[in-house]
Amino acid sequence: MSENRELGSQFRDFLRGFLEVPGQQAGADWGPRVGLTGLKENYAPHKVKPYTVTPGGIDNLGLHSTDVFTIPGKGEFSVDFSGYFRVARDNPTTTDWTTFQIFVNIVDLRLKGNHKDLGEISVSLNPDVLSSGQIFPATAPQGSAKCRIATGVVFDLPQARLSVFNKEPILLMNENVTSIPPVDDPNGHALLFMLPLFDRAHPSGKAVAYLTSLRYGADNYITEAEAKSFQR
Amino acid sequence: MSENRELGSQFRDFLRGFLEVPGQQAGADWGPRVGLTGLKENYAPHKVKPYTVTPGGIDNLGLHSTDVFTIPGKGEFSVDFSGYFRVARDNPTTTDWTTFQIFVNIVDLRLKGNHKDLGEISVSLNPDVLSSGQIFPATAPQGSAKCRIATGVVFDLPQARLSVFNKEPILLMNENVTSIPPVDDPNGHALLFMLPLFDRAHPSGKAVAYLTSLRYGADNYITEAEAKSFQR
Repeated sequence: MSENRELGSQFRDFLRGFLEVPGQQAGADWGPRVGLTGLKENYAPHKVKPYTVTPGGIDNLGLHSTDVFTIPGKGEFSVDFSGYFRVARDNPTTTDWTTFQIFVNIVDLRLKGNHKDLGEISVSLNPDVLSSGQIFPATAPQGSAKCRIATGVVFDLPQARLSVFNKEPILLMNENVTSIPPVDDPNGHALLFMLPLFDRAHPSGKAVAYLTSLRYGADNYITEAEAKSFQR
Repeated sequence: MSENRELGSQFRDFLRGFLEVPGQQAGADWGPRVGLTGLKENYAPHKVKPYTVTPGGIDNLGLHSTDVFTIPGKGEFSVDFSGYFRVARDNPTTTDWTTFQIFVNIVDLRLKGNHKDLGEISVSLNPDVLSSGQIFPATAPQGSAKCRIATGVVFDLPQARLSVFNKEPILLMNENVTSIPPVDDPNGHALLFMLPLFDRAHPSGKAVAYLTSLRYGADNYITEAEAKSFQR
């Protein structure tokens, strides 16, 4: 099943090759892919140092968010989520806090939430789009770095028999980053306005819901066992 | 030349057909396509009535913007643009100011600007992505409607020998819409944070510039002759 999916994905990549001509948007990617080769998996009790540019790695971090959805005709719904994400963070271009460039991809994301009217909701990474982003340097040695990640996810609402996804990126951002990665940092939010969510059963149709607000916080590193349990 | 381009585009659409499976993002479209059949072209001296839902049409409007770009290693550049855009506005679902739904596509956009260091800059619609959006109803009969349009453009800088485009949408929005379309309305801005711009010659590479701010205003209807002169 997983192998078939992989083959299907390779076939789509093959077809996409025909579509890539100079000047054309490369499929659904919003930014460059980070190669995973040579990047070490980081789990608890990995420590980060403030205002320090660290070598690349794959960060396994706890994650929580509060998302607000508007469903036309049904109203507004605020949902608290918690879970984890796994972020491939490329090696920095330099180790200077004021000049580095770092590219990142979210390579896994699993969140669960519950709403009294909507039931259980799970969030996962959309495998059809690359969630890509960047960390920007600070302007002073003890200044804040900034980050942005354009994220594509799927919200599954089994009780509402609905599965929706975003076509425009959910732009996760944080303008007050004091360590790489930002850990135990509640300052993240998504920059968005009535972001349309589309039904996976009718992807070319009109939006069936809107994401109207999202606040998130990256927690600290989780253990390898915790990561594996999220991945099950 | 234009016909070859059209054929190439049809071939890509044909190939894209193979890529569309339920649940997968449909190519590079950020929202639904508005059919042009039956929509009348609107030119000056077409008049709009405030707080009134009007039948669909194709609006030819003056447009101006002030865009701020950051080019790593070169600095920040603010550029004033002016020109026109042509917006296909679908028929509304109802004519009630507090409940209508209206979908729009930008089908043409031409802006020109000049910067003392960068030279002439022209902005055009990216033909490889559908610029799509929506007007949301007000909550009261004399309240403000809201609009959002996810826009894909190309910035051509011939003197810098550079042509760049956005992969994430430039989200044009206005939360204070008092007529449809909004005309003589300076309140538009783009919701963005360090939006990456990619070199059309190396579309899969890293961003070469960032759009850091964009404010815009829709002007009033232009004449058919003015529209034709922009389209040349």
